[in-house]
Amino acid sequence: MADGALDRLIQILSRLPGLGPRSARRAALQLVKKRETALMPLAAALEEVARTVRPCPQCGNLSEDALCPICADPERDRSQICVVEDVEDLWALERAGAFKGLYHVLGGTLSALDGIGPDRLAIPGLLSRVRGGGVGEVILALGATVEGQTTAHYVAERLQPTGVTITRLAHGVPVGGELDYLDDGTLTAAFKARRSL
Amino acid sequence: MADGALDRLIQILSRLPGLGPRSARRAALQLVKKRETALMPLAAALEEVARTVRPCPQCGNLSEDALCPICADPERDRSQICVVEDVEDLWALERAGAFKGLYHVLGGTLSALDGIGPDRLAIPGLLSRVRGGGVGEVILALGATVEGQTTAHYVAERLQPTGVTITRLAHGVPVGGELDYLDDGTLTAAFKARRSL
Repeated sequence: MADGALDRLIQILSRLPGLGPRSARRAALQLVKKRETALMPLAAALEEVARTVRPCPQCGNLSEDALCPICADPERDRSQICVVEDVEDLWALERAGAFKGLYHVLGGTLSALDGIGPDRLAIPGLLSRVRGGGVGEVILALGATVEGQTTAHYVAERLQPTGVTITRLAHGVPVGGELDYLDDGTLTAAFKARRSL
Repeated sequence: MADGALDRLIQILSRLPGLGPRSARRAALQLVKKRETALMPLAAALEEVARTVRPCPQCGNLSEDALCPICADPERDRSQICVVEDVEDLWALERAGAFKGLYHVLGGTLSALDGIGPDRLAIPGLLSRVRGGGVGEVILALGATVEGQTTAHYVAERLQPTGVTITRLAHGVPVGGELDYLDDGTLTAAFKARRSL
């Protein structure tokens, strides 16, 4: 029932992850109702992001500066590079605070189905960072999915000749996870990697 | 982990209905990744909506024109006014195609809790439309909630002196609904309003 401009806004909003047609309509209406406090700030934030945010040329993280805050931080351990699929994953690891080295964002995983070959991922950049020296360990923090693991194997193979240590994240029971909700693969992996108390 | 502009965008997106912090992050990243196909069109649509979309001065529907397409449509029955809480409800009724008269959007419901009194709703406009003549029936299509029904009673009381016929939507079993999923209130209402086959 929306006409013209409002309909276009709803269409565009409904393509965002997490918003279906119904919530896109509600979001659009809220934006119109709260013109000064919601619509204008969103338009301004989009404009600013479009103008200022770029991928970090070294790691692929998003940043407003020439190098991203992580790559530019002298406190971070430059001898470790953690390879992630996407910026989301980098943010999740940073929220966890578990890693104090640098990152490398591949920008996806290899996928024959979606036609994503090695040339579509930031693998050459990773190789040249490792060949550049000073890197002792590359941690492949890729998803425990078929695509993630295929990509991890491919990246590991390409890194092998450099002699760098290559590791991957541990598989196991998620902290706080209940056993009877876990899939067989996770349980088997957790059993195989069991450790003495 | 996002800095500056991107963080602001995520904050603003997370306040939209249907988007939590996690989906706001995903939405913001998708916008940045798809600058040309997602971010710029969204910014343009927002700008256009801000510039062109206004409430219809007669019914409160949203429109780019002086009068909304429904009020401006000579085919619609001007003797019936359907009173709804919000533009969402107007859209839902239009999608159902069940009504060919005009609308009046109250802009909410009376709520002592939220401090929404009659002065915050478009009740004076409704009264003057009815007093203006030519209206035979006002259909109160308000939610079957405490607030909706309180508002319906209040509006009905205010309309009484005009002599207009006042109706409300029927309560009953939703079409396609299964009885054992329905609450007692709906079942009782459906029983009381039973009709001969």
